[in-house]
Amino acid sequence: MTVGTTVVPLLINGEQITSSGNPNLEFTVSNPFKPDQVLYSARGATPEEANVAVETTQKGFFEWKEVSYTEKREIFNRAAILLSEKKSFFVQILKEMAISEWFANVNVEASIDMLKEAASLTSVSPGTLAQSSSPDLSIVVNEPIGPVLSIVPWNSPMVLCVRALVWPLAAGCSVLLKTSELSPLVHYELAKVMQDAGVPAAAMNSINISSQDAPSIIKQMIEHKGIRKVNFTGSTGVGRVIAQIASGVLKPVLLELGGKCASIVTESADLKKAAFGVVTAAFANNGQICMSTERVFVVQSVYDEFIKEVAAAADVVTKEVHLPQRTRRFAEAIEGILSSASEDKAEVIYGSIHREDAFVKPVILGNVHEKHTLYDVETFGPTCYINSVSTVEDAVNKVNSSNYGLSCGLWCSDIMKAVELARLLDTGAVHINGMTIHDEPVLPHGGVKSSGFGRFNGVWGIREFQYPKTITISPK
Amino acid sequence: MTVGTTVVPLLINGEQITSSGNPNLEFTVSNPFKPDQVLYSARGATPEEANVAVETTQKGFFEWKEVSYTEKREIFNRAAILLSEKKSFFVQILKEMAISEWFANVNVEASIDMLKEAASLTSVSPGTLAQSSSPDLSIVVNEPIGPVLSIVPWNSPMVLCVRALVWPLAAGCSVLLKTSELSPLVHYELAKVMQDAGVPAAAMNSINISSQDAPSIIKQMIEHKGIRKVNFTGSTGVGRVIAQIASGVLKPVLLELGGKCASIVTESADLKKAAFGVVTAAFANNGQICMSTERVFVVQSVYDEFIKEVAAAADVVTKEVHLPQRTRRFAEAIEGILSSASEDKAEVIYGSIHREDAFVKPVILGNVHEKHTLYDVETFGPTCYINSVSTVEDAVNKVNSSNYGLSCGLWCSDIMKAVELARLLDTGAVHINGMTIHDEPVLPHGGVKSSGFGRFNGVWGIREFQYPKTITISPK
Repeated sequence: MTVGTTVVPLLINGEQITSSGNPNLEFTVSNPFKPDQVLYSARGATPEEANVAVETTQKGFFEWKEVSYTEKREIFNRAAILLSEKKSFFVQILKEMAISEWFANVNVEASIDMLKEAASLTSVSPGTLAQSSSPDLSIVVNEPIGPVLSIVPWNSPMVLCVRALVWPLAAGCSVLLKTSELSPLVHYELAKVMQDAGVPAAAMNSINISSQDAPSIIKQMIEHKGIRKVNFTGSTGVGRVIAQIASGVLKPVLLELGGKCASIVTESADLKKAAFGVVTAAFANNGQICMSTERVFVVQSVYDEFIKEVAAAADVVTKEVHLPQRTRRFAEAIEGILSSASEDKAEVIYGSIHREDAFVKPVILGNVHEKHTLYDVETFGPTCYINSVSTVEDAVNKVNSSNYGLSCGLWCSDIMKAVELARLLDTGAVHINGMTIHDEPVLPHGGVKSSGFGRFNGVWGIREFQYPKTITISPK
Repeated sequence: MTVGTTVVPLLINGEQITSSGNPNLEFTVSNPFKPDQVLYSARGATPEEANVAVETTQKGFFEWKEVSYTEKREIFNRAAILLSEKKSFFVQILKEMAISEWFANVNVEASIDMLKEAASLTSVSPGTLAQSSSPDLSIVVNEPIGPVLSIVPWNSPMVLCVRALVWPLAAGCSVLLKTSELSPLVHYELAKVMQDAGVPAAAMNSINISSQDAPSIIKQMIEHKGIRKVNFTGSTGVGRVIAQIASGVLKPVLLELGGKCASIVTESADLKKAAFGVVTAAFANNGQICMSTERVFVVQSVYDEFIKEVAAAADVVTKEVHLPQRTRRFAEAIEGILSSASEDKAEVIYGSIHREDAFVKPVILGNVHEKHTLYDVETFGPTCYINSVSTVEDAVNKVNSSNYGLSCGLWCSDIMKAVELARLLDTGAVHINGMTIHDEPVLPHGGVKSSGFGRFNGVWGIREFQYPKTITISPK
């Protein structure tokens, strides 16, 4: 692969489609380090090709249903091996997207773990014997819901794509992948790995769509009778649009959307550990993670000491260097919201508000006003704010008043108290003495409110793509 | 209660609200037997009252969360006892809605059974210990999703309302009930039973809305921050509207919509039993059940014999008398679609196409054309059609080609073959040697495609109103 020459193809029925005779169908992917430089191109699908992709995925559903659970297990394990073998290749293409070597490695390893977990769950019980009064035998079978459309983001491009492929596949569904227009290469390569591992050609298709064509072609695919469920990982705004299209044709959706994840620091917290947890989760992948810590509520009595620990931790975790964002536009938006908060009396606790091209400096603010946009709008940048609260109950209320509800970190050495507070928190996950970024293939992952609904991972992720079919059996 | 004088109140925070000083807020409910006669009136809510109802339900959520599982069990059991004690009262008000004494009794008994089942499930495990690599302990707790808006229909007015109250309540949610404008009395009385049994006043509210105000007030309630999930049982058309409003504010929905349920009669079927099953499920409650049999596919070799059995069964199950529909408009619609099919060469196998006021005659058609509207549009009337097919696989394809997917009856004495076919059928339930109408509080109930998604009943019904919260616990 030479930079600038690659054209990421469509993958339909195992066929790699790049040529079209129409150069307008190609779109370019830029280098975040030099936003005006093209990294490579991708072949955008036409509406007709998208239709063919859906119809192929429909055909593939019936093929994939015939594959035994043991063979599915072999396929997922083979995919894990293939991914290990191609690790340096994947790390390389992730680094070109301004993902750090550390986070690129996390992406590959987490993807491998997820494939192995899915492999181990292929033998999970397909249903249950049900109590019933009149027929002699009743069962509830978890049936694959049908062909699934998976729409994936660019920010943690491997693991968020693998989960959108492997859980529907493990559930018995075929998958049509819609790659991100900011990272089509890695998504295509992952689809290819699944196919190379043995998923039938028709059961795992992948298409790229240019930004301008995406609204109409995605709508067309969701509305196609062949698609039975849609999963989307990305922004809350786009998630809402997708949910509205799907609801118009009565199709269920799984939505993994934005977050404004909070950490709560109580009086009994280990402040040094809490500070490292907060700072790590604020700056990991340059802030471009839905589980990033963007809000911290600290009980007043330990606020001053915690701030000192945060500054010390930040000096270790990140230097005051500029961090690349995926696009210049994203960096501009981050700079805008931070500057506005600063003008509204928020103080800079660490770092500085500064942008150069697609790069911003890491920064931690204090005393952000509840009425300022920054208070509850996701920045998706390397920044968080730390506000003091009078009591821990006050902190819980502030977390719950958010429109978002993805994950929460809770630093507290009284574990029974922490579990009690965790039950009160209106979020999909609570990590007691852990940071907001925490994702394991065995634990359900998803949010509430504007963070979406539905769950990836583990048995939850499999059931998400199945429906319970009640079968009552009378002898004659 | 004297006919014509009752005014069904709103029930907000335990207060029964009828008076308003504004007679325009009342709407009337008509007698199906004499469509121009008013049975009683109901007090329609104003937008302000609907807001108060949502906010009360929000408050009630926190009260209900504090109630222990043992007390919840007592409450549901007490509700079952109260319902038994008021049985003759409920049968009476159902009969006034043109529901037969038999189906009225089924409604009461099924409601009692459901309350008892919910009582027994209050001690179901609240979650699970989860495997996790890094923290020392991880749990997944099923948390109540929050205040639920339940919108219920008139056709099987008790059991469809009880399930919309009791499963969210069993999940730990508070409920705001929106009664049907065609049966507000029975819905209000059921809400009252729940409260009399011990559900806190704020946790179980009920409001009536007039037909003309329903679109705007329902939208307002769904969009209110206080409502966290919506369940709707009713027509596919209205379900779509509700799903679209909910998706605009990213709220999950449970939809139990229409059906065009099919029965398949194979060569090995017990034709007499199958005929009784088909006829019973076509005519029960005068055809006004989402699980009604509206389509029958019979393997050609047994078609003629089956038709004879059907005519004999129909003579026992129903006489050729006029059956009342809930409104004159519904009866007109049924007459219209049947007449049109008859003009399109469908033959009358049993009964006749005839309407008088809000009454229609039971009728069975044969040879309905795949292109005619009747082929896949729900009539919701006392009618079904019987078409012949060349093979049982052909029948499966015809069932699956429907836009609907609620339940299916499958008459076949080779049970292993029947289970194999059941797995292929794209419906929420398959009843082997049973009719399409089959509903037990222990078995998940719901559909696929235009029949909706999500499940009532049993553990499935409880989980529907909860979200899995992942809690990881590290010692400090």
